[in-house]
Amino acid sequence: MVAEVKEFLGEDWKAFEKLFAEILASRIPILNKVNDYLIGRSGKQLRPMLCLLAARLCAGRCTDASVRCAVASEMIHTATLLHDDVADGSDTRRGAPTVSALMSPTASVLVGDYWLSRGVITLIDACEKETLRYFSECLGELAEGEMFQIEKAESLDTTLDDYIYIIAHKTSSLFRAAMKSGARNVGCSAVQLEAVDSFAYHLGLAFQMRDDILDYSPALSIGKPTGQDILERKITLPLLGAFAAAGADARAAVVAEIAAGRFEGVLPFVLEHGGIEYAQQVLEQQTSQAVAALSVFPDSPAKRLLTALAQGLCLRNC
Amino acid sequence: MVAEVKEFLGEDWKAFEKLFAEILASRIPILNKVNDYLIGRSGKQLRPMLCLLAARLCAGRCTDASVRCAVASEMIHTATLLHDDVADGSDTRRGAPTVSALMSPTASVLVGDYWLSRGVITLIDACEKETLRYFSECLGELAEGEMFQIEKAESLDTTLDDYIYIIAHKTSSLFRAAMKSGARNVGCSAVQLEAVDSFAYHLGLAFQMRDDILDYSPALSIGKPTGQDILERKITLPLLGAFAAAGADARAAVVAEIAAGRFEGVLPFVLEHGGIEYAQQVLEQQTSQAVAALSVFPDSPAKRLLTALAQGLCLRNC
Repeated sequence: MVAEVKEFLGEDWKAFEKLFAEILASRIPILNKVNDYLIGRSGKQLRPMLCLLAARLCAGRCTDASVRCAVASEMIHTATLLHDDVADGSDTRRGAPTVSALMSPTASVLVGDYWLSRGVITLIDACEKETLRYFSECLGELAEGEMFQIEKAESLDTTLDDYIYIIAHKTSSLFRAAMKSGARNVGCSAVQLEAVDSFAYHLGLAFQMRDDILDYSPALSIGKPTGQDILERKITLPLLGAFAAAGADARAAVVAEIAAGRFEGVLPFVLEHGGIEYAQQVLEQQTSQAVAALSVFPDSPAKRLLTALAQGLCLRNC
Repeated sequence: MVAEVKEFLGEDWKAFEKLFAEILASRIPILNKVNDYLIGRSGKQLRPMLCLLAARLCAGRCTDASVRCAVASEMIHTATLLHDDVADGSDTRRGAPTVSALMSPTASVLVGDYWLSRGVITLIDACEKETLRYFSECLGELAEGEMFQIEKAESLDTTLDDYIYIIAHKTSSLFRAAMKSGARNVGCSAVQLEAVDSFAYHLGLAFQMRDDILDYSPALSIGKPTGQDILERKITLPLLGAFAAAGADARAAVVAEIAAGRFEGVLPFVLEHGGIEYAQQVLEQQTSQAVAALSVFPDSPAKRLLTALAQGLCLRNC
């Protein structure tokens, strides 16, 4: 799917990759070394893809400004990962040592700040002012989402609304900024902007829900450790589903166990009360809403690819 | 001196304080708690003072945009302190526990990102686009300065040029962004902008040199631990002065001691070879250059206060 999108984007994707590498160049050798390391270990680069697809969807083409927005979205994403790795004390990401482990937490924080700064600079000249607001608001929302999650990991009283609030802030937020900036900078209409925003919002929720489901799915060998969320006292969708099915007393008992640092019972509890099936249903609703948001657009290759990306999230092993 | 400046700035300073508190308001209780804690433990707030003084110097008045720039400068400063505290593992700052120690490194990184985001947002509507570039470039330069310092702490081969490069990036950079944005947003001339920039550059160097001298002055009771720099293998101005006076062989011997983790000999070496007097001389040259940069401006209260601020840095116990 990812390869298909990159092929469709063609020259625009190449322009993204070129600018991404150029914009990071520093006069500090050690910083260039870290930047190269990070570029060499890029993930799927979903956010810049979404950004460029949004431009294609609205105007049939990308501009220099679209490419800049794509670069900014990936830079801000990487910067927040660099900051998260320090925050979480993570030693590996995407199967390779983190900058924090390889060099130091200091380096990870500083390189993150450097990427944030380059991300904003990328946008200043060529992009509409509103673009700067999208990404700046997004950076604040990412922090707010994470802070709220920390608060809830203390109190262990996460509701479904809290959960949606958290994942909307920590995941949908950057999907929205990436896609809205992509659309806005090719001069989309207000209706198109709203549709793209709605798609990005629901896609972001679905994307995070899928991640949270996978965390309860040790059977799937996806090369990622599972069961991490509950060890960090994060109450996510599968557990919320099991709580709803099992009732208040059962919830209180499980929460007491978690509060006491005993986590072994959580996975069996979730499985027994259909938490994963529940979460999968909610995820499918979200992808349906994402796809429905695109209905204002006529058929096009960009629309088909965005639809396929959303529907792909429903497949457990995608 | 600080009180005098605040009194002179009067209503403009009050407007700064008001906007500073308002702009941080979040919907996340835990974030508001941390924000209040940080506002309650603000330092001298030198950067917003410089920003507003630059506006007064150039135009005799501040505008809403000046106040916004002042707020952004303090927010970016605080954000980088929050990030530094995680990076350094610092438990106290300004005599109170750091956010990192009080809550967690995670919170410190995230709150820093939140402040960065609010800092940029503060500027978007009311300020000239160039202002965004000043502050974004500055954030990158702060990171570059710190990364270069880390590189040099490894190699232990810091030259005077390296030292100036480091402190220009990690300290002058934000002084310059604050003052240039203050000047620019009241419609200063190109000559005024250059003069303000030069003042800020030299003041920033002098400010950091004074800090680095104090780190070698255990006799002064300034409520700050001394000798930290060399423990972190940072070769600063007093030691560079002693190196220059003592010659290459002596330098090699001291560097070998530092490389071996033996630091006891460094302070006596610096004292014996006049490192502090040397650094004090260089500092005084910098403050002279700062003051000289103001010569393009006619006499005014703002000019007198900026001159006094610069000259005050030469006093060892100010």
